[in-house]
Amino acid sequence: MSLLEQTISAIKSELNHDAHAKAKQRLQDQAKPPGSLGIMEEIGARLAAIKGTIDVHLTNKQIITCAGDHGVVAEGVSAFPAEVTPRMVFNFVEGGASVNIIGKHAGARVNAADIGVNYDFDPGLPIFHKKVKYGTDNFTKGPAMTRAEAIQSIEAGIEIVNELHAQTPVDLLGTGDMGIGNTTPSTAIIAAFSGLPVERLTGRGSGVDDKGLANKIAVIQKGLDINEPDPKDPLDVLAKVGGLEIGGLAGLVIGAAAKGIPVVCDGLISTAGALIACELAPAAKNYLFASHKSVEIGQKYMHDRLGLAPLIDLKFRLGEGTGAAVCMALLDLATRILADIKTFDEVGISNEI
Amino acid sequence: MSLLEQTISAIKSELNHDAHAKAKQRLQDQAKPPGSLGIMEEIGARLAAIKGTIDVHLTNKQIITCAGDHGVVAEGVSAFPAEVTPRMVFNFVEGGASVNIIGKHAGARVNAADIGVNYDFDPGLPIFHKKVKYGTDNFTKGPAMTRAEAIQSIEAGIEIVNELHAQTPVDLLGTGDMGIGNTTPSTAIIAAFSGLPVERLTGRGSGVDDKGLANKIAVIQKGLDINEPDPKDPLDVLAKVGGLEIGGLAGLVIGAAAKGIPVVCDGLISTAGALIACELAPAAKNYLFASHKSVEIGQKYMHDRLGLAPLIDLKFRLGEGTGAAVCMALLDLATRILADIKTFDEVGISNEI
Repeated sequence: MSLLEQTISAIKSELNHDAHAKAKQRLQDQAKPPGSLGIMEEIGARLAAIKGTIDVHLTNKQIITCAGDHGVVAEGVSAFPAEVTPRMVFNFVEGGASVNIIGKHAGARVNAADIGVNYDFDPGLPIFHKKVKYGTDNFTKGPAMTRAEAIQSIEAGIEIVNELHAQTPVDLLGTGDMGIGNTTPSTAIIAAFSGLPVERLTGRGSGVDDKGLANKIAVIQKGLDINEPDPKDPLDVLAKVGGLEIGGLAGLVIGAAAKGIPVVCDGLISTAGALIACELAPAAKNYLFASHKSVEIGQKYMHDRLGLAPLIDLKFRLGEGTGAAVCMALLDLATRILADIKTFDEVGISNEI
Repeated sequence: MSLLEQTISAIKSELNHDAHAKAKQRLQDQAKPPGSLGIMEEIGARLAAIKGTIDVHLTNKQIITCAGDHGVVAEGVSAFPAEVTPRMVFNFVEGGASVNIIGKHAGARVNAADIGVNYDFDPGLPIFHKKVKYGTDNFTKGPAMTRAEAIQSIEAGIEIVNELHAQTPVDLLGTGDMGIGNTTPSTAIIAAFSGLPVERLTGRGSGVDDKGLANKIAVIQKGLDINEPDPKDPLDVLAKVGGLEIGGLAGLVIGAAAKGIPVVCDGLISTAGALIACELAPAAKNYLFASHKSVEIGQKYMHDRLGLAPLIDLKFRLGEGTGAAVCMALLDLATRILADIKTFDEVGISNEI
């Protein structure tokens, strides 16, 4: 079996029912109207089911920001030039990027991973060096990558989780992306799976104007027409219209699920990766939490397909793991709500007075 | 001038335009697509305008949970008995209540205040002892309190801010409530101001059934019919159909605004207090942040009237300051986003490449 196949087969099909039931009972018994902490109670109960205990501690919180370049940028789909991708990787390493600041606030470590950046990083740079190739090929002229490269990109994400978890067990993983042009393949992925019209799924990414948006829609449509990705074959979709960092993000989700690590998924690109992961391994969904509702309209259709509702809507459209980082703090809070809020019994108020 | 009049007159009518402009410029220059951190950018800029600097530190975060009882509970409007109000005050002091746990996670101190609980607390109990009287009168039989008592309850909130701020300057204040039955006066307040039908504004509070909801609507309608609160006179509304802790919450907002302290407002009851505050002192709105969208339907009409949009929607319906506490962490984050995310210049990426 390949690493990908092995890892998918290691994902448990069910969570811990006993811990889930105990969590629901404790939330019911706490000194507050039952259910009055809404979604935070549901999250706490699911985390208990994942971890097998009602006293969950998400101490080691880790964000991985997968980076890759995109041949399709040659078609003018982004407001930024491709050179920004490696520059932002340096920014992540130096700690001054958005995800660093928000991650720090959430108590999460942030590491970047080169899955397919068009730049030779010094091997000593403290990132995960998992380059599959120097960016995808332009998918308006043929597949973005080969099927073997698609598998390699997913396995890169799996390896990252395995390496991290072997160092210090990871309690909570957040996903993030960097790759100029990557809302284009992400939108192509949901278009391929859903069969919905491209214009209903396409947003402005980092900020293209009306003309740029029309071009982006045409580019995505051309990529789908030329490559004919098979929606029943997630690896075919990833290879033909996807991205290397999107494969890496899928691998993070599959790798984490196999280790029983809950994953908070960021915006459009991370959700595209999670979608590839869950099309390949549906049981991974049990470990997945949608962080925020992105301004990018295609993400809604990904969430619908995943059966997940985003936690917050702060009108983010940045990526990097910024939305995941905000929500990692909320998952942490959900564990404290479950474990630490006293029950009526514990505070000496009868439930029946 | 009374303390209330003095305090209202001390609220500045405008925020610091220069700091606001500097904040907007920095957010524009940061190494990310402009505006891509959405609402967090708006909050950061408003906090800069409030504090007069783009490097805001919300170090001393303080939640005050105002408690009071309600004569109208005799009409069967709540799923819980009035005895729970003082018991929960003890729970706040002991640190095991929902607001304590969420406040701790946000790095906020939590203190309770007795504005009108029907219980004699030991004067040594570490709460703010500001009792106006032992709960309101049943507003289906006459006014909930006198106009003098309404003013006294607001001044109690102002005094709390003044005392706290004199000890250690407060950087961010969160409001919260405890008072069995208090969704009933809160709903009556928005009904009085808006003139909307009571049934459109009334929710299930801590969890009344269909019969209980119908009774609650009838009780609120009776209170409005008997007392005829004047919507142009906020003190009249508070006195006739309000609550003592609701007055205290209004006082917190007015007191904080006068000291230039941003205030994060919790759920239905805290928002009712904020509404009284802003009807009395419209400039207080500049300092006010709506935290969460409550399950209680009346709150939406309060937010509309205040011109504020809630930050999050986690299906909370608890009060105590729980929603405010979650959002205090987000305001803290907004200050770091503004000050700490590097600009393109600072990381050596030209904006024009």
